[in-house]
Amino acid sequence: MAKKFNEIHEVTFYECDINGTMTLPMLLNSVIKTSEAQSEQLQVSTDQLQKLGITWVITQHEMNIHRLPKVGQLIKITTQGTSYNKYFCYREFWVQDKETGEQLAHIFSTFVLMDLTTRKMISVPDDLLVAFESEKIKRIHRGPHFHQPTDGAFHQPYRVRFSDIDSNKHVNNAKYLDWMVDCLDYDKLTQYLPQKVWIKFEKEISYGHTIDSFFSQRLLEEHDQFWTDHEIFVEGNRCASANILWRKRK
Amino acid sequence: MAKKFNEIHEVTFYECDINGTMTLPMLLNSVIKTSEAQSEQLQVSTDQLQKLGITWVITQHEMNIHRLPKVGQLIKITTQGTSYNKYFCYREFWVQDKETGEQLAHIFSTFVLMDLTTRKMISVPDDLLVAFESEKIKRIHRGPHFHQPTDGAFHQPYRVRFSDIDSNKHVNNAKYLDWMVDCLDYDKLTQYLPQKVWIKFEKEISYGHTIDSFFSQRLLEEHDQFWTDHEIFVEGNRCASANILWRKRK
Repeated sequence: MAKKFNEIHEVTFYECDINGTMTLPMLLNSVIKTSEAQSEQLQVSTDQLQKLGITWVITQHEMNIHRLPKVGQLIKITTQGTSYNKYFCYREFWVQDKETGEQLAHIFSTFVLMDLTTRKMISVPDDLLVAFESEKIKRIHRGPHFHQPTDGAFHQPYRVRFSDIDSNKHVNNAKYLDWMVDCLDYDKLTQYLPQKVWIKFEKEISYGHTIDSFFSQRLLEEHDQFWTDHEIFVEGNRCASANILWRKRK
Repeated sequence: MAKKFNEIHEVTFYECDINGTMTLPMLLNSVIKTSEAQSEQLQVSTDQLQKLGITWVITQHEMNIHRLPKVGQLIKITTQGTSYNKYFCYREFWVQDKETGEQLAHIFSTFVLMDLTTRKMISVPDDLLVAFESEKIKRIHRGPHFHQPTDGAFHQPYRVRFSDIDSNKHVNNAKYLDWMVDCLDYDKLTQYLPQKVWIKFEKEISYGHTIDSFFSQRLLEEHDQFWTDHEIFVEGNRCASANILWRKRK
């Protein structure tokens, strides 16, 4: 059984939007912060990996959101490096209300290791994950089937800003979700809540790039729900895809 | 002597930029969070004010930065509502390293009260500030003289995004600094650090606006320092001005 680790996080007003609920990028940022804290505690921090010439790269998140955390709420973020196979490491996050224990979100994330010199994926050294007590498995988690935006989808350009890039000198993954969600209109973003978010990352984006964010909507029979399908391109290359299920606020 | 209040804040990676130091908008956000916590403790929270039909509006910050907080650092943010006169309330913030007590930044801010219906400034009711034990003064703090960008200054447009607006339904003040600083080039932003920041806010900015961010540079005799002068406009109306003194990283 993989080691669990948790942190308490106070949701700040600047992690929330006009709805007073945490934005999706900030929810991702806060859980990643917790996984970094676990890695540090187990002395396998990002800094220590970089000294070995390797770093973590996130390739996919599958988020199930029961209730978005609210401004001022104390949330308990629990994580474990659940399992791994030759190339993929699977990490889970549980977000709960600190007081009541109510489950707010569950996130299943896929990480790979990249060689910092070749920028290529490497196979996972067994000894690296000993401290996490992750289970070694053979199975590869295939994840969801992604829907692409339709032809003629709405699209909008975003110039990568200085504040979008992190200490790895590329755009922080969470930012992609910001560019995706911002394409929806004001009414949708105030009247609907994200319920499921599937996002996969294919290419790094750097300072100075201009990205094109595409999205279209997929209606469901349930009139109070719909999916949005998203893709982000830089110069004709797809950098990320996402599907988000929205439901009407009650 | 006005009541002091403090909070410990852990600087997260997503509050920092490529330099591993806290961004100016996030530094402002974190201190404002502390002032809101004090107001809540003294039962004069923003929510309670809004029930009285009024709200706080920040008109100016004067920041002196000795050393920007770093990712992972625990900082102690101390604040007090120092003094007030008929229309203006002056609040100070001190940012220190939690362990060593080293002074990292001092911020002197001016707040006014706005009537939520008329959107006009109102005079400060004495009884509102009793709990803060702020000193009533006659003097008006004039603040610095602002330099304007020169004719032909560099300018860049920014579309207001959904995530830029806060629960007051307008752009969060701190965001203005993001649009200002982003105009500088990559080399400047990695080789220089902000030392002084003066910013004044003149008009609200809303969702759907496109702002124009102007800036020019003012050289000093000391070759390792320079000023940048900034203004932000919406449809020909100035919404904010700022001057920032930068010094070369050591």
